[in-house]
Amino acid sequence: MQSNDQRAYDRGVTVFSPDGRLYQVEYAREAVKRGSPAVGVATDDAVVFAAHGRPRSPLMEPDSIEKVHDVDGRLGVATAGHVADARRLVDYGRQFAQRERLRYGEAPAVEPVAKAVADQIQESTQTGGTRPFGAALLVGGVVESVPRLYEIDPSGTPTEWRATAVGDGSEVIRSHLEAEYVAESDAGAGVSLALSALDEGTDGELRAREIDVAVLDECGYEAFDRDRRATVLDDADLSPAS
Amino acid sequence: MQSNDQRAYDRGVTVFSPDGRLYQVEYAREAVKRGSPAVGVATDDAVVFAAHGRPRSPLMEPDSIEKVHDVDGRLGVATAGHVADARRLVDYGRQFAQRERLRYGEAPAVEPVAKAVADQIQESTQTGGTRPFGAALLVGGVVESVPRLYEIDPSGTPTEWRATAVGDGSEVIRSHLEAEYVAESDAGAGVSLALSALDEGTDGELRAREIDVAVLDECGYEAFDRDRRATVLDDADLSPAS
Amino acid sequence: MQSNDQRAYDRGVTVFSPDGRLYQVEYAREAVKRGSPAVGVATDDAVVFAAHGRPRSPLMEPDSIEKVHDVDGRLGVATAGHVADARRLVDYGRQFAQRERLRYGEAPAVEPVAKAVADQIQESTQTGGTRPFGAALLVGGVVESVPRLYEIDPSGTPTEWRATAVGDGSEVIRSHLEAEYVAESDAGAGVSLALSALDEGTDGELRAREIDVAVLDECGYEAFDRDRRATVLDDADLSPAS
Amino acid sequence: MQSNDQRAYDRGVTVFSPDGRLYQVEYAREAVKRGSPAVGVATDDAVVFAAHGRPRSPLMEPDSIEKVHDVDGRLGVATAGHVADARRLVDYGRQFAQRERLRYGEAPAVEPVAKAVADQIQESTQTGGTRPFGAALLVGGVVESVPRLYEIDPSGTPTEWRATAVGDGSEVIRSHLEAEYVAESDAGAGVSLALSALDEGTDGELRAREIDVAVLDECGYEAFDRDRRATVLDDADLSPAS
Amino acid sequence: MQSNDQRAYDRGVTVFSPDGRLYQVEYAREAVKRGSPAVGVATDDAVVFAAHGRPRSPLMEPDSIEKVHDVDGRLGVATAGHVADARRLVDYGRQFAQRERLRYGEAPAVEPVAKAVADQIQESTQTGGTRPFGAALLVGGVVESVPRLYEIDPSGTPTEWRATAVGDGSEVIRSHLEAEYVAESDAGAGVSLALSALDEGTDGELRAREIDVAVLDECGYEAFDRDRRATVLDDADLSPAS
Amino acid sequence: MQSNDQRAYDRGVTVFSPDGRLYQVEYAREAVKRGSPAVGVATDDAVVFAAHGRPRSPLMEPDSIEKVHDVDGRLGVATAGHVADARRLVDYGRQFAQRERLRYGEAPAVEPVAKAVADQIQESTQTGGTRPFGAALLVGGVVESVPRLYEIDPSGTPTEWRATAVGDGSEVIRSHLEAEYVAESDAGAGVSLALSALDEGTDGELRAREIDVAVLDECGYEAFDRDRRATVLDDADLSPAS
Amino acid sequence: MQSNDQRAYDRGVTVFSPDGRLYQVEYAREAVKRGSPAVGVATDDAVVFAAHGRPRSPLMEPDSIEKVHDVDGRLGVATAGHVADARRLVDYGRQFAQRERLRYGEAPAVEPVAKAVADQIQESTQTGGTRPFGAALLVGGVVESVPRLYEIDPSGTPTEWRATAVGDGSEVIRSHLEAEYVAESDAGAGVSLALSALDEGTDGELRAREIDVAVLDECGYEAFDRDRRATVLDDADLSPAS
Repeated sequence: MQSNDQRAYDRGVTVFSPDGRLYQVEYAREAVKRGSPAVGVATDDAVVFAAHGRPRSPLMEPDSIEKVHDVDGRLGVATAGHVADARRLVDYGRQFAQRERLRYGEAPAVEPVAKAVADQIQESTQTGGTRPFGAALLVGGVVESVPRLYEIDPSGTPTEWRATAVGDGSEVIRSHLEAEYVAESDAGAGVSLALSALDEGTDGELRAREIDVAVLDECGYEAFDRDRRATVLDDADLSPAS
Repeated sequence: MQSNDQRAYDRGVTVFSPDGRLYQVEYAREAVKRGSPAVGVATDDAVVFAAHGRPRSPLMEPDSIEKVHDVDGRLGVATAGHVADARRLVDYGRQFAQRERLRYGEAPAVEPVAKAVADQIQESTQTGGTRPFGAALLVGGVVESVPRLYEIDPSGTPTEWRATAVGDGSEVIRSHLEAEYVAESDAGAGVSLALSALDEGTDGELRAREIDVAVLDECGYEAFDRDRRATVLDDADLSPAS
Repeated sequence: MQSNDQRAYDRGVTVFSPDGRLYQVEYAREAVKRGSPAVGVATDDAVVFAAHGRPRSPLMEPDSIEKVHDVDGRLGVATAGHVADARRLVDYGRQFAQRERLRYGEAPAVEPVAKAVADQIQESTQTGGTRPFGAALLVGGVVESVPRLYEIDPSGTPTEWRATAVGDGSEVIRSHLEAEYVAESDAGAGVSLALSALDEGTDGELRAREIDVAVLDECGYEAFDRDRRATVLDDADLSPAS
Repeated sequence: MQSNDQRAYDRGVTVFSPDGRLYQVEYAREAVKRGSPAVGVATDDAVVFAAHGRPRSPLMEPDSIEKVHDVDGRLGVATAGHVADARRLVDYGRQFAQRERLRYGEAPAVEPVAKAVADQIQESTQTGGTRPFGAALLVGGVVESVPRLYEIDPSGTPTEWRATAVGDGSEVIRSHLEAEYVAESDAGAGVSLALSALDEGTDGELRAREIDVAVLDECGYEAFDRDRRATVLDDADLSPAS
Repeated sequence: MQSNDQRAYDRGVTVFSPDGRLYQVEYAREAVKRGSPAVGVATDDAVVFAAHGRPRSPLMEPDSIEKVHDVDGRLGVATAGHVADARRLVDYGRQFAQRERLRYGEAPAVEPVAKAVADQIQESTQTGGTRPFGAALLVGGVVESVPRLYEIDPSGTPTEWRATAVGDGSEVIRSHLEAEYVAESDAGAGVSLALSALDEGTDGELRAREIDVAVLDECGYEAFDRDRRATVLDDADLSPAS
Repeated sequence: MQSNDQRAYDRGVTVFSPDGRLYQVEYAREAVKRGSPAVGVATDDAVVFAAHGRPRSPLMEPDSIEKVHDVDGRLGVATAGHVADARRLVDYGRQFAQRERLRYGEAPAVEPVAKAVADQIQESTQTGGTRPFGAALLVGGVVESVPRLYEIDPSGTPTEWRATAVGDGSEVIRSHLEAEYVAESDAGAGVSLALSALDEGTDGELRAREIDVAVLDECGYEAFDRDRRATVLDDADLSPAS
Repeated sequence: MQSNDQRAYDRGVTVFSPDGRLYQVEYAREAVKRGSPAVGVATDDAVVFAAHGRPRSPLMEPDSIEKVHDVDGRLGVATAGHVADARRLVDYGRQFAQRERLRYGEAPAVEPVAKAVADQIQESTQTGGTRPFGAALLVGGVVESVPRLYEIDPSGTPTEWRATAVGDGSEVIRSHLEAEYVAESDAGAGVSLALSALDEGTDGELRAREIDVAVLDECGYEAFDRDRRATVLDDADLSPAS
């Protein structure tokens, strides 16, 4: 198919191209690739998120470049792509989790939250009057001792992974994960793996102030503060040579 | 009709072409062909589903590439095509089954569920503001000892089959089914037939971790775990020569 | 008017062409002609439907290619054209019949059902945001000893007939009906006439497994099973020479 | 103005052309001219309708080609143009009459019914999302001894007449009416005039089975059966030489 | 600005052209000029309306070519332009007057009615999904001994006049009014002035059956019957030489 | 940016151009410049409005060319631009003032009224389905002894002024105001300044019958009648040399 | 990508370009750059806003060029860009703060207000029928002794800063802030820094009458009057040499 034909189909959100593709969804995937990367690793007893978001200025609070989000104290979400779109989806996940908790007296597991967010995204790709969301999400947590990690792409498809990445450089990062992932490991090893993978996908060095790290285990969501981030970077031999 | 003319009609979801065709529906059929295949076989006492979904990475949980779905413990759905669209339709089928059960105190049979999903799909092809669903479904189950198997295509037409397939390679698979289908057979033979047919439509070998197998009989929905999948592949002489 | 001009008017559902035509409705008529034919014959005491739908595969349940439908035990509908559209209209007719029965404690006659469906179709040709239905219907039944048979076309116009046909080859079939129709006849003669007419409009021979036959009389709707279809084909000297 | 310019304005329902015309309404008038004609004549004590609708086939029930309609036992409507559109407008008139009767305990006169239908039509020419109705109507009846006859065109304008016609050949018919209309006459003379005018506008001869005749007088709506139609054709010296 | 540019702006109802014009409103003014004229004259104690509407046929009831309308027994409206549009606006004015009367126990004065109708028109020029009204109105009446006369144009602007005209030839008519209007005069002089002005703007002679004349004074709305119209034409030396 | 590019952005109400402009709003400003001017001057104890509106004809009531409007007896609005649009905004301001009064038992001050109208205008520039308002407003009054004067432009931005003008020639008028405005002055001086400024922006001489003058002070809104307008023109040495 | 391609994507609010960009959002950023700048600085105990808005005329009340806004007595917002859009967002923030206060009996902190406004903005970039807001905001305040300062851009992304700027010249201003910002400082130093930064980004000199200064500390929102603004300009050695 030539570019003239492609152009005819890629402007309308809700139409298929003659070869069965949805161009707007494919372009939203490009928007994800324009965002800084996020990594997720499931270990024996935890899910680890590490993400990179370089502040535009030393005056910007690096913590406000939200890349890893606490959903309800137990589950977490890491995002890549169009920041404002990602925030909406995180909010949707939070509201879903809270609603479920109120309705059933029990917090939802990882899969229902991932699927609820995925449904929301799918709807944006089919119903007129709205564009797709330009963001991909990692949803993870440990429920009843089982760590689960989902990736949701801009088509609204949820898939489960042992370790994966979204955003700029995600292919390089995933190759690293595939090479280095060890089935039985603890949260500490997961953090090291996540950081080394993130480092692979990043130009220059990782700095404690420019990354987000969070561990989700039986005890719930724990975001690392900058000191601890510096420590784990150090542990992973990734500290900038200063 | 020339390609210039075709282009004029295939962008608008809700219009007929001069020769009475709905191009968007035909393009949605192309989207189905881009998805990995799913096979359904009705035997004397069961409906068997087998589907193929190769994980993109060894770190992906192969079980999360949902191809065969439990609707309500008795009925099942196998899907091919745009994954996110398929999930929506499966969810719709589940909600329909649950609503019927609540309303009438009895679970619905196979045909009503298939037709409810088909209606949902038809509406997407006629009403403005939405594109068709880029997915085809197989709906099956055993109700009052009768195994029933329906195929629903992107136009929203339900048809009943003894054995059929949807997705990439479905024509090759169906030819195999037509050649090999035996009217009176049990679930085990059905599984073998479904797997050999799926093998026909697949480049390379089937691996236990890359397929979904489920049997629906009087006892309800039973998805095979990986060991059992390996066993039935073995029984069907389809195990990779390792 | 040239083809350039025509193209300008036939894409918009809701506009007239300068010569007062509605092209989308005319294209929906083409969609009807792409469907296998259905015949209706009103006799002295019955309405007979016969329709042809060749299964795509020997594994397809021929009965699932719905061509003749029981509306409410007394009235029937035979359809031709886009199958999914036809199903929606049949459902609408069923709901209308049921609603009327609940409201007035009495089942509606043939004409009100035909007109309700026709209104539904007309609306699809005038209101924006929806395309016309690509299906034509025959609606028939015997109410208070009077057999009535209506045809509804994609413009939403209901007309009453003694015998008629819709779908592929309907013009040939109607010519046969006009030549052979006898005013006073019984249901059996009606079945023979309907089958011989259907045979005229079909390439190749009629097979019991590929046709639908139903008789509507004072006792209500009766669909013929395959044995009986074989018998009446035989009676009409239409059995394949085997 | 050239044809290039015209094309720019005649596709959008809701816009004026630079010279203040509404092309879609003018095209709907063309749709009316494509329909078989209907004649209305007001006499001293009655309104007479006569209309012509040739069945497409001898198997079609000529009575089902609805051209003259009983609104509420007292008022009648004759139509020309797109049949399905006309039916909707007749239904609207019936509902309006019934609603008024329920609300005020008294049936509405001719003018309010004509104006309510006209308003409905006007709205279709101004509001987006719908095309105009491709039908013209004659509305008539005798209320409190005064026969009234209205014509409503596709712009939604109601006008009152002593005698008029709509549909194919209406200009020829109207010329005949202008030449032959006699102010003081009875219903019988009105029927003869209506039929002779209709005959003027018709190729070939009028046949009792192909025409509708109805008289509206103090006693209400009376449609002529085929025998009576044959008699009045005979009285008007219009019977086919058989 | 060239015609290519103009075309770009005059198809969309709701957009300004670069020089701040609303072309659809200007085209609606053209639609007004295509209608037969209406004249309004305010005298010391009355408002006089005279309008011209030539019946298309001697069989048309000239009174049914509504040009002057009684709003509520006290106020009147004369219209020019697209007849069906004008009727809608007159109806709106009537409903407004009735609603006000019910709400406040008192009929509204001329200005509120004129402004309510003007608002309705303005909305049609700003809100999407509807075209402007192709009609201009004169609204008049005597409330508390003060005769008031308003003109409302297709932009929805109400202006007050001593004497004015709308429709075909309105510029010629207004020149005549400007030359002949005398500040202090009675209703009879007003009728004469209105008729002579109307005569200026009309090709051929005025005939009693082709005009509408109404006087609004302290006693309310009074439409002249044909005899009286003949008399006043005579009084104004405007009777056709017969 | 070339004119070809500009055209691409100025037809859609709700889109930004690549350089961040909203062309429809800029074109609405052109519509304002097509209207006759209005001047506002705040003095120590009053706000003065003067506006110019030449009647199209000597028969037009000059007072009906509404340029200065009483909002609620205390506040006033002067307008320029598309007259029908301006009237809607004035009505909106009146309704807002009345609603506030009912809700809080106290009439609103100048600023809340100006901002409420501005919000209404802003919405018309952002929400689809409606064009901007082609009018600019001056809103003024004296609340708790403080004279306040606001200008609202077609983007919906309210700004406060000591003296300003909108409409045709507003730039010339404002230059005059800037040169002549004296901080401490009374209402009489304000009227003189407003009139001399208006005179600057007007071709030809100001005539008492063609202008609106109103003073808003502690006592509320007072529109000058023609005699008083003649007097103040005289006082300002602006009377036509007659 | 060439400009021809770009044009194809930047007119539709809700579509991605093939490289994953949302052009309308990028154009809205250009609208922000067309507005005069606003600076925010967080100190140890306060947030300081300084903004520049040069009046178009000496008769314009400089205070009415709203650049810094009191949200609820404790929080403040400074804006840059399309003034009318900014006002809507400030209003939205005020309503949100008030609603929260009513609902929870406690005023909301800085972050929830910033995020609520950001969500509103994001929605305008995704949902059809509306354009993005052409404004950027700084939201700040001291809640429980912690000064917080957020920037929200036209994509709806909130980020936290120690000091930042939006609008024309914001990059120059931010460079100055980065060079001069001292972590531990009091409100007075913050005001000086904000003013010197603003001066960097402004052609010509800052004048007390053309700037807005506000300090938000434990005591709430305090806007500086002109005298105080002159004093702080003086303190910062930024007073015009007069």
